[in-house]
Amino acid sequence: MSNYTQILYEVENGVATITLHRPDKMNAFTGTMMNEMISAFDEIDADDNVRAVIVTGHGDRAFCAGADLTPEDGKHVFASGEAVSDLSDTRVRDGGGLLTLRIYQCKKPVIAAVNGAAVGIGVTMQLAMDIRLASESARFGFVFARRGIVPEAASSWFLPRLVGPQQALEWCYTGRIFDAQEALKGGLVRSVHPAGELLAEARKLAREIADNTAPVSVALTRHMLWRNAAQPHPMEAHKIDSRAIYRRSRSGDAKEGIASFLEKRAPNYPDKVSTDMPDFFPWWEEPVYN
Amino acid sequence: MSNYTQILYEVENGVATITLHRPDKMNAFTGTMMNEMISAFDEIDADDNVRAVIVTGHGDRAFCAGADLTPEDGKHVFASGEAVSDLSDTRVRDGGGLLTLRIYQCKKPVIAAVNGAAVGIGVTMQLAMDIRLASESARFGFVFARRGIVPEAASSWFLPRLVGPQQALEWCYTGRIFDAQEALKGGLVRSVHPAGELLAEARKLAREIADNTAPVSVALTRHMLWRNAAQPHPMEAHKIDSRAIYRRSRSGDAKEGIASFLEKRAPNYPDKVSTDMPDFFPWWEEPVYN
Amino acid sequence: MSNYTQILYEVENGVATITLHRPDKMNAFTGTMMNEMISAFDEIDADDNVRAVIVTGHGDRAFCAGADLTPEDGKHVFASGEAVSDLSDTRVRDGGGLLTLRIYQCKKPVIAAVNGAAVGIGVTMQLAMDIRLASESARFGFVFARRGIVPEAASSWFLPRLVGPQQALEWCYTGRIFDAQEALKGGLVRSVHPAGELLAEARKLAREIADNTAPVSVALTRHMLWRNAAQPHPMEAHKIDSRAIYRRSRSGDAKEGIASFLEKRAPNYPDKVSTDMPDFFPWWEEPVYN
Repeated sequence: MSNYTQILYEVENGVATITLHRPDKMNAFTGTMMNEMISAFDEIDADDNVRAVIVTGHGDRAFCAGADLTPEDGKHVFASGEAVSDLSDTRVRDGGGLLTLRIYQCKKPVIAAVNGAAVGIGVTMQLAMDIRLASESARFGFVFARRGIVPEAASSWFLPRLVGPQQALEWCYTGRIFDAQEALKGGLVRSVHPAGELLAEARKLAREIADNTAPVSVALTRHMLWRNAAQPHPMEAHKIDSRAIYRRSRSGDAKEGIASFLEKRAPNYPDKVSTDMPDFFPWWEEPVYN
Repeated sequence: MSNYTQILYEVENGVATITLHRPDKMNAFTGTMMNEMISAFDEIDADDNVRAVIVTGHGDRAFCAGADLTPEDGKHVFASGEAVSDLSDTRVRDGGGLLTLRIYQCKKPVIAAVNGAAVGIGVTMQLAMDIRLASESARFGFVFARRGIVPEAASSWFLPRLVGPQQALEWCYTGRIFDAQEALKGGLVRSVHPAGELLAEARKLAREIADNTAPVSVALTRHMLWRNAAQPHPMEAHKIDSRAIYRRSRSGDAKEGIASFLEKRAPNYPDKVSTDMPDFFPWWEEPVYN
Repeated sequence: MSNYTQILYEVENGVATITLHRPDKMNAFTGTMMNEMISAFDEIDADDNVRAVIVTGHGDRAFCAGADLTPEDGKHVFASGEAVSDLSDTRVRDGGGLLTLRIYQCKKPVIAAVNGAAVGIGVTMQLAMDIRLASESARFGFVFARRGIVPEAASSWFLPRLVGPQQALEWCYTGRIFDAQEALKGGLVRSVHPAGELLAEARKLAREIADNTAPVSVALTRHMLWRNAAQPHPMEAHKIDSRAIYRRSRSGDAKEGIASFLEKRAPNYPDKVSTDMPDFFPWWEEPVYN
């Protein structure tokens, strides 16, 4: 396992937890944190023991207070470096987007446990995660227009899909800080919990997945739902799920799934994400930055 | 009318009702049921007397308990037959998708009245229907990952559009069985009713359509809303609705619509879906399975 | 400023208000009103003093009662003129769509303050606006199928994105008139207010934007959220926001945004929408009617 300096990474009983960890900085985002998170997701995809991921912040004040704007750290993520004239130069790429596109590729379910302030990249990084739980003390802010910049980390793609254009625009236009109840009402988070129960609730949800479902089925499900829904016609979904049902219904997992169901016992699926994804996976080509 | 063996089909006062009907099997889905449902939708589209469709399940236990996994029936729908190496072979096509893509083509509004358990294909078939009402005793489950397979029937396209990616992923990741209230809160069903009132409520909604609106307008509306919304720019919608307004505003239906409105009386529209769809319909080409 | 005859247009303290104004006609829509609204949006985009737009209706009865069907006015918008055989002829274009596509191009946030009846084009014109507030006495109706025509003004693209296909289809299938509470529950409007407080609430929201955020950031945000979310992959959003962050983080606005934040004072952004949009804007090509 890598030696991380700005995150904690642990795997326990099939659930990986990434904890953003800059205790004196409200877990503010830096280039180092970005690289460490991307490495952690590489570990997660390579480790068949990991069935689900929880991302949370250290302490009870912040999930992630946004890009670190102090000089020593801010240079990594904001308005730094030489000038590049060709905007298709990969050095122009937004660091938040490098992270969310990496999360988008992940083959495991990703759950955000939002334990405090989540501002700027602190909230946009969550949008590429699948399910968001918040503590009662969580705060959110798409503050970009108040800083003279714009929503980043591919949030202009994710946010309207998650909460609809009306709510997405209001949050991004005003740049206001809003609380957990507004996040719940607007559909950004799926539930709100007392601070002391947040991680337990996130783990309960992770367990519900890890204890009952087949890993390869879950990996396929993640990419089918995100990718097929973005296509213009249901035929694309039909093509992919026909292939997947055809292959998976002949798998050891399907035998075990039906047998454990009929025998009313916990399943023990044989197939692994590292080696047993079906031959047609991935069925898409990732676009490149240009 | 066909002699159906696993569904009931009746048309009364402009409303067709398809009742999934395998009394001892919780209306579990088979290849026969799939074919009969597809035939019923063919009848529906060919019959100008049909203004709206209700799909429900026989009895008070199940809408449809999923694919029949018992040997004599399961072979039609699950893990059966010879092995095919080319996944673009049409024999690979998922039967649930054949049904939902047929429903997607339908020219009449389709209302699901979910009277009990709706699991696997029992719930994914509903996603291509337009509006879902549930009884208080309805239960739902996207259980695929618990059986080692994946969401089918093109549900990876429909479900995130209906309820958003966050809710869609949670239901498909966990494979949990959830009740009518969770379905309502998540946006899967639009209302929940006491079991004894479910069909009456579905019929009331069907009547609201059948008694007031022009059949050709409703057929166009169905395909405009599903298809145009999936395009990347509103210009596509503008192209189609310009054509439709141009043709329809010169139709007998428009004259009758305005006259009946001004005269405060029930309308009697002359145009028929079988013969009077405008010349530009259909404006799309259906993609083929490959 | 143009001499408008069917709308009022005023700019006060950074907020433009368009008031639909046909006092004896329930602000019914005509070709003249369409042209005047389009001109007003041209003024809005050209005037750097305008930071946000409110659209409302005169009086307390109607926002806009739909297309004027009386002979002298209806000829402009409904079933009039010579017959055109080629449906790609631009004379076929729906007037409601000319308006909503113009609103879609706008570089300022657009808020609808729905003060009364909003029927037909009276409600579909709102869908291209960003945020909708309603008075308790507001009424809505997608009545097209009751008049023998179809939803227009590109509403088949906007409405399912705003409220989901299930709710969009029910409103368009039935053509029913529904009240502010149903609009709120269905997600069409974001809040409902006593009639006497509606405009003040709309202005409060406009002020929250105008007093805190950078105009160029807001203009970019509008087009990023609407356009990028409609693309099939988040890479498009990443491409655009990388360019935008790169350019904007080196702008005077970003310096002022951070300085005013750290100094806890109101910002005074130097960049203007008329002259300082980044070099890659617009990053899309508008499709043409054909």
